[in-house]
Amino acid sequence: MNQDYIKADKWSIIEEGFDQENVKSSESIFSIGNGAMGQRANFEETYTGETFQGSYIAGVYYPDKTRVGWWKNGYPEYFAKVLNAPNWIGINIYINDVALDLATCKKVSGFRRELNMKGGIYTRCFQAVTSNNVEIDVIVKRFLSLDIDEVGAISYNVKVLKTDAKIVFEPYLDGGITNEDSNWDDKFWNITNITSANNRAFIEAHTMKTNFQTCTFMQASLHYNGKEVSPKPADRSESFVSIKFEQNVKANESVVLTKFGGYTVERNHPNKELTSVANLTLDKVSDLGFESLLEKQKASWASIWEMSDIVIEGDIKAQQGIRFNIFQLNQTYLGTDSRLNIGPKGFTGEKYGGSTYWDTEAYCIPFYMATKDDKVARKLLKYRYNHLEKAIANAKKLGFFNGAALYPMVTMNGEECHNEWEITFEEIHRNGAIAFAIHNYYRYTGDYSYIPEMGLEVLIGIARFWHQRVNFSEEKGKYVMLGVTGPNEYENNVHNNWYTNYLAKWCINYTLTQLDKVKSGYADDYHRIIGKTKLTDRECEKWKNVADEMYFPYSKKYGVFLQQDGFLDKDLVRVDELPKTERPINQKWSWDRILRSPYIKQADVLQGFYFFEEDFSLEDLEKHFDFYEPFTVHESSLSPCVHSIQAAKLGRMEQAYNFYLRTSRLDLDDYNKEVEEGLHITSMAGTWMSIVEGFGGMRVVDDKLSFKPQIPNQWKAYSFKVNFRDRIIKVHVTSENVSFQLIGSKEVSIRVNGKKVELFPDKLITV
Amino acid sequence: MNQDYIKADKWSIIEEGFDQENVKSSESIFSIGNGAMGQRANFEETYTGETFQGSYIAGVYYPDKTRVGWWKNGYPEYFAKVLNAPNWIGINIYINDVALDLATCKKVSGFRRELNMKGGIYTRCFQAVTSNNVEIDVIVKRFLSLDIDEVGAISYNVKVLKTDAKIVFEPYLDGGITNEDSNWDDKFWNITNITSANNRAFIEAHTMKTNFQTCTFMQASLHYNGKEVSPKPADRSESFVSIKFEQNVKANESVVLTKFGGYTVERNHPNKELTSVANLTLDKVSDLGFESLLEKQKASWASIWEMSDIVIEGDIKAQQGIRFNIFQLNQTYLGTDSRLNIGPKGFTGEKYGGSTYWDTEAYCIPFYMATKDDKVARKLLKYRYNHLEKAIANAKKLGFFNGAALYPMVTMNGEECHNEWEITFEEIHRNGAIAFAIHNYYRYTGDYSYIPEMGLEVLIGIARFWHQRVNFSEEKGKYVMLGVTGPNEYENNVHNNWYTNYLAKWCINYTLTQLDKVKSGYADDYHRIIGKTKLTDRECEKWKNVADEMYFPYSKKYGVFLQQDGFLDKDLVRVDELPKTERPINQKWSWDRILRSPYIKQADVLQGFYFFEEDFSLEDLEKHFDFYEPFTVHESSLSPCVHSIQAAKLGRMEQAYNFYLRTSRLDLDDYNKEVEEGLHITSMAGTWMSIVEGFGGMRVVDDKLSFKPQIPNQWKAYSFKVNFRDRIIKVHVTSENVSFQLIGSKEVSIRVNGKKVELFPDKLITV
Repeated sequence: MNQDYIKADKWSIIEEGFDQENVKSSESIFSIGNGAMGQRANFEETYTGETFQGSYIAGVYYPDKTRVGWWKNGYPEYFAKVLNAPNWIGINIYINDVALDLATCKKVSGFRRELNMKGGIYTRCFQAVTSNNVEIDVIVKRFLSLDIDEVGAISYNVKVLKTDAKIVFEPYLDGGITNEDSNWDDKFWNITNITSANNRAFIEAHTMKTNFQTCTFMQASLHYNGKEVSPKPADRSESFVSIKFEQNVKANESVVLTKFGGYTVERNHPNKELTSVANLTLDKVSDLGFESLLEKQKASWASIWEMSDIVIEGDIKAQQGIRFNIFQLNQTYLGTDSRLNIGPKGFTGEKYGGSTYWDTEAYCIPFYMATKDDKVARKLLKYRYNHLEKAIANAKKLGFFNGAALYPMVTMNGEECHNEWEITFEEIHRNGAIAFAIHNYYRYTGDYSYIPEMGLEVLIGIARFWHQRVNFSEEKGKYVMLGVTGPNEYENNVHNNWYTNYLAKWCINYTLTQLDKVKSGYADDYHRIIGKTKLTDRECEKWKNVADEMYFPYSKKYGVFLQQDGFLDKDLVRVDELPKTERPINQKWSWDRILRSPYIKQADVLQGFYFFEEDFSLEDLEKHFDFYEPFTVHESSLSPCVHSIQAAKLGRMEQAYNFYLRTSRLDLDDYNKEVEEGLHITSMAGTWMSIVEGFGGMRVVDDKLSFKPQIPNQWKAYSFKVNFRDRIIKVHVTSENVSFQLIGSKEVSIRVNGKKVELFPDKLITV
Repeated sequence: MNQDYIKADKWSIIEEGFDQENVKSSESIFSIGNGAMGQRANFEETYTGETFQGSYIAGVYYPDKTRVGWWKNGYPEYFAKVLNAPNWIGINIYINDVALDLATCKKVSGFRRELNMKGGIYTRCFQAVTSNNVEIDVIVKRFLSLDIDEVGAISYNVKVLKTDAKIVFEPYLDGGITNEDSNWDDKFWNITNITSANNRAFIEAHTMKTNFQTCTFMQASLHYNGKEVSPKPADRSESFVSIKFEQNVKANESVVLTKFGGYTVERNHPNKELTSVANLTLDKVSDLGFESLLEKQKASWASIWEMSDIVIEGDIKAQQGIRFNIFQLNQTYLGTDSRLNIGPKGFTGEKYGGSTYWDTEAYCIPFYMATKDDKVARKLLKYRYNHLEKAIANAKKLGFFNGAALYPMVTMNGEECHNEWEITFEEIHRNGAIAFAIHNYYRYTGDYSYIPEMGLEVLIGIARFWHQRVNFSEEKGKYVMLGVTGPNEYENNVHNNWYTNYLAKWCINYTLTQLDKVKSGYADDYHRIIGKTKLTDRECEKWKNVADEMYFPYSKKYGVFLQQDGFLDKDLVRVDELPKTERPINQKWSWDRILRSPYIKQADVLQGFYFFEEDFSLEDLEKHFDFYEPFTVHESSLSPCVHSIQAAKLGRMEQAYNFYLRTSRLDLDDYNKEVEEGLHITSMAGTWMSIVEGFGGMRVVDDKLSFKPQIPNQWKAYSFKVNFRDRIIKVHVTSENVSFQLIGSKEVSIRVNGKKVELFPDKLITV
């Protein structure tokens, strides 16, 4: 843990007291988003202290020129960067002609931020003595509407204490923004038009190179004593437009600026209509007004929580952690658009180009399947189908052929956004996760249609890749896979990473099985796909041979599969034998030392045991868990959740609970000393899995949901809901019993601790 | 081969005809240097075509901020970059007020460059019709004085044909230069003073951060019809100073500008005297005049050639190649200053930070020992001794301790100048080459004094590093070395690279032997060193244990040591089975594909067989050569020479000859399509070894020189001289016989084809 200033609360994230040191961290933690756009919790008014300004529009990116020390063949020349967009939240405030700036105020007291997750609203308040000695009391509310997702709303209330004061509000739009995370300080935006009329303003701008057309817009109104104050004519410069309101405010009276703003983008509207659509949107929200829009917001969040909330009794920090995770996932991605995906930092920062990692398939899809519905997960799968041609092109660039597909390590539009050879070219297990997600989707939803319609083509491209990526070792008499990086990125360029080899074998076999299934059940699709891919029986036989003759490193002595060739040559000192001063090794050790060590960043062999647990006995799991976990440093946000699930499965609840705490409060407590760069969105789905799959023991077995619920000692009870094939099942676990409630009209049978249990609509069953 | 425009000639490098496409390539090839400074063959006059401008001062560098895509712990924050220095060669020439510029002339004919290696002078001539229709005939001569190495001289002769013309010469100094190879476009130079008086000018400037003080200076004079033309007052700007001469020149008459210029640097003079020393230097050279200075230049080069020339009869391209190699080595480093070293591109380009690679120890020292004297090689060794503390600090940064030393991959001042983890942290065999050079120096020169005085401390630091770098593998019951890159950089992060393990074992054993020797023969030094290093017998025992129990990968099936663990798992397709279209693989293949392949960039196992050939039988060599050479793509400039030597040793003269041609004409024929970036200086010493050690079969065995001369079929004869322990032995080889001539006063016994031969002063012995 690196910080503990966030107050524990069941439904809110709260900061109290103004500390400039925390500003960037809080800007991340208090970020708001609505799936279509999002922002860091930057102050609306001027702030001259340390800040990281960021406003992001889903799907709007820039192809930044690659920067490396040493170029390696195969790197992308350009890759998509998350792009800071024109700022619409800004409101300069002048009090007796001096800009309000918390960094220069003589005194700031009662500073409080609250991100209320129940209603999706962010409130900030403070009292200040300005540098020119005016005392004020400020309350600012802000939210991004879930209902009208192109718009956000701000209510900025200033009360003047003790003396009268002249206050000028200058709400503005600013297109003169830069990216913190840019390689070459390129100019990213080209502003084509700035217009304003009355209390509205618009900046039309498109991104350079990618040419995404956008309109950033705002409307502002000022009320004093119930009366609307007229704006002055707008101020405009090359990249900036503002509206000014001036008001003499009497002591102990308040003035309120209401600002609506947001973006219209060409993904949703014709280019030429962006400004007119923006105008219509402003008409709509100003008709509604701030309070009504806020009521809708609360209702919309209530409906999200209705399905996705996890209630934990008796452990307020754990409760706050899981809700923060669920809240952030929903702020980032709502499943409404198959062109979008779940960025590693969502709308909370810029680090890492691109938006889509294997995290989506390995961690996020289960969350969205269970808390939304089939359609959302299907959109996430379709996203990859839409990128298949680019994955084939990517593989071709690296020397593969015949339609072999290598999905990028991270991407925005299907093209690779990474440039580190040991990751970009070698961390190829990501391809397997994409195939696994297809299996997982069908297993959970029972919807087979995706496979003949789209999935099988993806699977064929992936199987082809694995077939070409191995080579036959005369020495071993088996197929080997050289030069890979497994999920444990503390090993690079290893040979026969067990997880990758296992996944490759599984992908081939799964593809062959689906080919048979589609052939017999979906003849038209089968012929279409065979025609398109030119797949022959001979090729399938070759694949099969690779799968059958795949090499797996194994230690007879320890009775475990080895993470990779040569793992036992390492100096096998357990993590708990390392001095604390050496941890985290990714900050204390040189890279070569990390590579030579046995230390594991995140589940690697154990990731395979997670994905394919039905292939292994509990004894196998225990043996591998006991062998690998002691070498695992969990220095990836994706590590604790898988280990939490497996520890729970092994009945080690204390260990499972500790892993849970680490994953759920990673950002709130800033374990990795980097939260100011943004939040770890995708690992938040892992937190959800830790509870549902870990403590709840939920699995899908033979088309049925199965549970083996346990509860950490620290908790009184916990409950969650899952949507399984249009049945919503609410699970409530206490240390005494477990109850199940089926919400809906159709009965369903589940398994609890291996025994069949029938659930009937709206009837509570306690086990 | 990528180009063939260089004319074959025994003593000169010649280009005929003006082709803008060749300008950058020729700027590299026709570079001149004198060990203290050097320049690319940029035109003196304006040139608006594609050009790569470069002037370099030995030992003057800039700490450029590291640029990487992804930071790895242990990278240096800054590293030294070769630095383009203020330009003193420039002469703007205006003909009837229009700048002479070969890129815009209406016609250029008779263009010819000649770099005469015998005398160290570069001549360029051409006729041109200028853009304003004046016909001129130009001859420019330029050289950098070996005798007064702070100065160079230019004679710029313009003859006007057909019509009279007004010609303005504007010789200048320009401090407003940039680096092609800079990471962040930093400003590298700070100009502190610009002065001029009569026909002289001076720019005082220091490098930013490193604060190297320099004075760039010039003197110019114009002669027309035997009379000196008076200059106009100097023009000056912030970073530029020039002197103008104006002359109306009659048709068919010539005007000659003579310019002297160069640098004085604080490495050689007190800061405050740089300009006054420059003035004195100009006094000296202007007293001498251009022609006398040139005569001295020829005499100095004659004396270099007297010792170092290799004459090849019957193969003009081979002759030109070896002389070009010897010439460039001498232009780069003359062995006069132990603070300097042999940069990979010498004074011909900027690529690669730093100046010193393991190339110096592995390739260059033998050349300098044999063609100069002990002192030069000793200076190169001392350079590393002077950097020992920094090598210890470098190792410490990576987690080593107790005085373990890791010399940088490349350096200028002892600090690491590389930032690619698989090289910087893993290509650690460089440390062994530094120890090997100490052994090689003593073996060749018989001068043991270096070891007690300095070498032993270096050896202890290196032995300590190896001892800490291995770990004991319980699995193998041996010490293993994980995560290294061998000389074959087409493998990264491998385990138990045979060459590195062998070298480590050798280093430890050699250090232990020297400790004993110094203890018994140099007690004072021994106690000083033990006191300083705190070395204990217990530590030495641990080293010994590592050396004794080192693991070496070996294949029983093939009877060869394996390049690294798992080499036989590769798809062992020989290079000659690869389609030509796939070569060179470093341009045609993605990096991961190269890594997975069996292809070898340069000698790796065979480098060990080269260094330690006495440890292996000829049969062993043959077996390993036959196993590894077929997988070797020779895509490093350092590859063909070692293979040439070994092919010759195995009696495969045709193969040896082909390797020789490739190494000797690498830059002239631009095999690697990159000569425009600069020349490959260090590999040029490998070319010399190919003849002397390869064809000549020269070795030192038991304190005696030994030869096994052979001659390629393509040659009539060849001869070379070596300086061995103050005896100069001239070797002349024809297809019929070999003759030896001892130049000097003391007799010496050598071995020829295993038989002892006594050489007497100035007596020719034919075998």
